[in-house]
Amino acid sequence: MRVGILGYGNLGRGVENAIKQNPDTELVAVFTRRNPQDIKINSNAKVVNVSEIENWKDKIDILILCGGSATDLPEQTPKYAKLFNVIDSFDTHAKIPEHFTNVDKSAQEAGKVAIISVGWDPGLFSLNRMYANAILPEGVDYTFWGKGVSQGHSDAIRRIEGVLDAKQYTVPVQKALDAVKNCENPSLTTREKHTRECYVVLKEGADAKRVEHEIKTMPNYFADYDTTVHFISLEELKKNHSGIPHGGCVIRTGKTGSNKENNHVIEYNLKLDSNPEFTSSVLIAYARAAYRLNKEGQKGAKTVFDIAPCYLSPKSGEELRKTML
Amino acid sequence: MRVGILGYGNLGRGVENAIKQNPDTELVAVFTRRNPQDIKINSNAKVVNVSEIENWKDKIDILILCGGSATDLPEQTPKYAKLFNVIDSFDTHAKIPEHFTNVDKSAQEAGKVAIISVGWDPGLFSLNRMYANAILPEGVDYTFWGKGVSQGHSDAIRRIEGVLDAKQYTVPVQKALDAVKNCENPSLTTREKHTRECYVVLKEGADAKRVEHEIKTMPNYFADYDTTVHFISLEELKKNHSGIPHGGCVIRTGKTGSNKENNHVIEYNLKLDSNPEFTSSVLIAYARAAYRLNKEGQKGAKTVFDIAPCYLSPKSGEELRKTML
Repeated sequence: MRVGILGYGNLGRGVENAIKQNPDTELVAVFTRRNPQDIKINSNAKVVNVSEIENWKDKIDILILCGGSATDLPEQTPKYAKLFNVIDSFDTHAKIPEHFTNVDKSAQEAGKVAIISVGWDPGLFSLNRMYANAILPEGVDYTFWGKGVSQGHSDAIRRIEGVLDAKQYTVPVQKALDAVKNCENPSLTTREKHTRECYVVLKEGADAKRVEHEIKTMPNYFADYDTTVHFISLEELKKNHSGIPHGGCVIRTGKTGSNKENNHVIEYNLKLDSNPEFTSSVLIAYARAAYRLNKEGQKGAKTVFDIAPCYLSPKSGEELRKTML
Repeated sequence: MRVGILGYGNLGRGVENAIKQNPDTELVAVFTRRNPQDIKINSNAKVVNVSEIENWKDKIDILILCGGSATDLPEQTPKYAKLFNVIDSFDTHAKIPEHFTNVDKSAQEAGKVAIISVGWDPGLFSLNRMYANAILPEGVDYTFWGKGVSQGHSDAIRRIEGVLDAKQYTVPVQKALDAVKNCENPSLTTREKHTRECYVVLKEGADAKRVEHEIKTMPNYFADYDTTVHFISLEELKKNHSGIPHGGCVIRTGKTGSNKENNHVIEYNLKLDSNPEFTSSVLIAYARAAYRLNKEGQKGAKTVFDIAPCYLSPKSGEELRKTML
């Protein structure tokens, strides 16, 4: 499977690494909006300006779109689904139906397969929500995130005057998790589910009290949470907070039995040292599925719900039944 | 969807309950090898001797086989796949390839869909092994069972002379679980993974010492495990050990990154008050899938690996994308 990557940030580099772990895949080109000569990649693939992408129509089997959901993907995925089988990790939950419609139109017309919103949330978490709901129709869903770095919240802190750098961790509240797993079906407010821990490096002379107040009262981002602010040195931030870990869990609790007397807990849990590298690993597995489905004659936009699990694996049906069932 | 059940034990009763939780399904007949008049069911469906099952060919959309894997299903699933779409929970892992071949032949010829080995292991655990392996190609798999009742081990104890009744719990070893989740990639012996807890009621005058010795030294069942034997009264057994709870977890730990420096943990966890009722709930979801796939013109034997998740849910693709992605 000949793979192209569009966008060489954390996610693009993650896909490059993931390809090395999957012998049936080969990276042939990295497409960029920058000057290709400014980009040094860690493999033998070509680096190509995106303006030339049409020339690669018959040279790659799948294009993995590694841009952002805010502005890149709403434009890129419908555009490139006209030329290639594509995968994206579009994660603006509220806009997924609209994105699906746009991508589907292009992919149907071009006879390509486009799998959107691939990753872990949306993605693996969605799958687990769906399976658990189908199996336990009478129940309650919970999703917890973290402990992990929220890029958006870290950026929000960095925009405050007097802040040199910052990292924000989203942390699930253990008490809430315990109540959920204990089948107490709690109704949880935003504040009861997650706390926010901020590690902040101040510019010289900045007023720590004011910065802390601005963080804790920031609407949408922090005001609804119990937020802790730690002021640390730049060295400490680099030494202890340079990673991009994340994770979380999806839990569904449900009841069965003639008197609904039996409780069941289905829990899916991820603990990830690198959010973008794990997401990339999911992207490559679904890239394999898109390529195979297209070879079978399928086309159009799809999500993780539409893909039979066996398409993700390089193993044959026979091997899977023998070794994993 | 008109459902038939073959076999009215714990699993059959579980399916009957699960149907009540799924408004798009209807139980129309329970087939039995016993005298139908001896069986009292908890719904308005007909109870029919299995000898008359052929008359129901056009009256049910899917037959759920609720027999045992040792002798019932190897014969029943290929036999009834000639007449109906069928689902079974065949769980003799080593014989799955052979069972698949037999069932596939019948289902292909008859133009029916037969989904085999549905439940949680094999079933949901298999799915999670497969997804996790496809996503993290470089990693290690672990499966732990329990805490839960092993019917086979309880039966083995009951066959010992002097035992009136018994219940055996399989319990995962916390230290092993912790090491796995901590990405230590331990190599674990049988003894290091699970312990066995036995609650035994003796017949009057039985020799407790001898019974305990016979349990602990029983080959295959107990000799390779750290086994604890508790002698209790029949009242206590009935009061505290009458349920059939089970569960367990599938964990895959894997590495990514240019130097394999990042660890990831994917964990799927089930905690079930009633093993047969939960298994039944999985069966009904896959019954929906089999029926739909057959309506789309598909046929032959399939496993959980072959079924796109959306087929399990009564919701439309649009609804799923809007509410669960």
